[in-house]
Amino acid sequence: MTEQRTSPPADPPPPPLAPGTRRPGGRTARTRAAVRDAVLTGLAEHGYPGLTVEYVAEHSGIHKTTLYRRWGNLEGLLVDALDLAGEDSWTPPDTGSLEGDLRALAHTTAASFEDSTAAAAPTAFIAAAFHSERAAKALNAFYTERFARCEAIVARAVSRRELDPRTDAGALVRAVVSPLFFRLFITREPMDEALADRSADAALAAARAGVFNSPAESA
Amino acid sequence: MTEQRTSPPADPPPPPLAPGTRRPGGRTARTRAAVRDAVLTGLAEHGYPGLTVEYVAEHSGIHKTTLYRRWGNLEGLLVDALDLAGEDSWTPPDTGSLEGDLRALAHTTAASFEDSTAAAAPTAFIAAAFHSERAAKALNAFYTERFARCEAIVARAVSRRELDPRTDAGALVRAVVSPLFFRLFITREPMDEALADRSADAALAAARAGVFNSPAESA
Repeated sequence: MTEQRTSPPADPPPPPLAPGTRRPGGRTARTRAAVRDAVLTGLAEHGYPGLTVEYVAEHSGIHKTTLYRRWGNLEGLLVDALDLAGEDSWTPPDTGSLEGDLRALAHTTAASFEDSTAAAAPTAFIAAAFHSERAAKALNAFYTERFARCEAIVARAVSRRELDPRTDAGALVRAVVSPLFFRLFITREPMDEALADRSADAALAAARAGVFNSPAESA
Repeated sequence: MTEQRTSPPADPPPPPLAPGTRRPGGRTARTRAAVRDAVLTGLAEHGYPGLTVEYVAEHSGIHKTTLYRRWGNLEGLLVDALDLAGEDSWTPPDTGSLEGDLRALAHTTAASFEDSTAAAAPTAFIAAAFHSERAAKALNAFYTERFARCEAIVARAVSRRELDPRTDAGALVRAVVSPLFFRLFITREPMDEALADRSADAALAAARAGVFNSPAESA
């Protein structure tokens, strides 16, 4: 029943659209954070089907009995780690122009999956959603909230009169990153900076052409 | 060592961008097709981590010894089923206009994942790529070849003078379907006909704005 943190909190700030990237500190309980860290490390090392409650107990220093009592099972541990990943204070890029913001969003997303060590846990969350309905729901909640934050980019562009107020902000920000995720996780093709730029530019061109205008969602 | 087909060949023609959809007949050997059918059925029922060589033996009527000798292991069976899925005669939509072709491509893709039974095997291939490097390579090969076929849409549009000859055809056709796959397998959001139309229209608007123009790949 030792509930102490054994693994040190890890370093880089969380990339925006990579669920499960570690972050230091936070307002959550030490136990929850220690367990989260162990889950992320385990996902990075073994992936979802390879992760076990035993592993999480060993690497968090939290007794297995406590893990089962509080989180129920491995799925519960996974979902809580994902929920916790969504509780950061990340805000989308604010460069002063819509083009700059969308390109920055694309670049940050691409960069967050570029380093294979950093990408391991986020990738494992995406993989886990294929095998667990609860993980899929948690991933959906993570992205829904994350893209809601990204809508600030569009709101600012509208207030600068760069964009039609009828623009569906959610559709636009999803369009920016879709080609990146598509190549990473579906077609398994390489990504580069040029692709990130082009994805942002394509979404912007479509927005300017009014493709994302939605009469139902006028701002 | 009985090498006879026990499961009947299945029915609908293969959707374009859904790897592993069954198809009837073909120029491949009966054994290979029977094994492929068993792999697809097994993937649909159990997913990749749940599929076993025993299952494939039982459902194909091909002895386990033969499976191991010819395909090596489960990964080999999976990869061959995916290779075989790419050997169909599918051609991309040809409606007479670029807009019509891109919308049809988006709709066919969306439709191929709409029915959960039909989507099970293709989805399992995408999931397997997270766990198997060989599956990831086979999936990459499948999509590379599939999108190469889709480039005919762009070539026709260029010859009709609907599109700049410098348009990177591969980028354009990938852009059409990226938002659909993104919602299906990353954010786990619902898809509908309107989304398919909008994805096609967004890609088209970007192409018309010259975003996909590539000086290196002039037609």
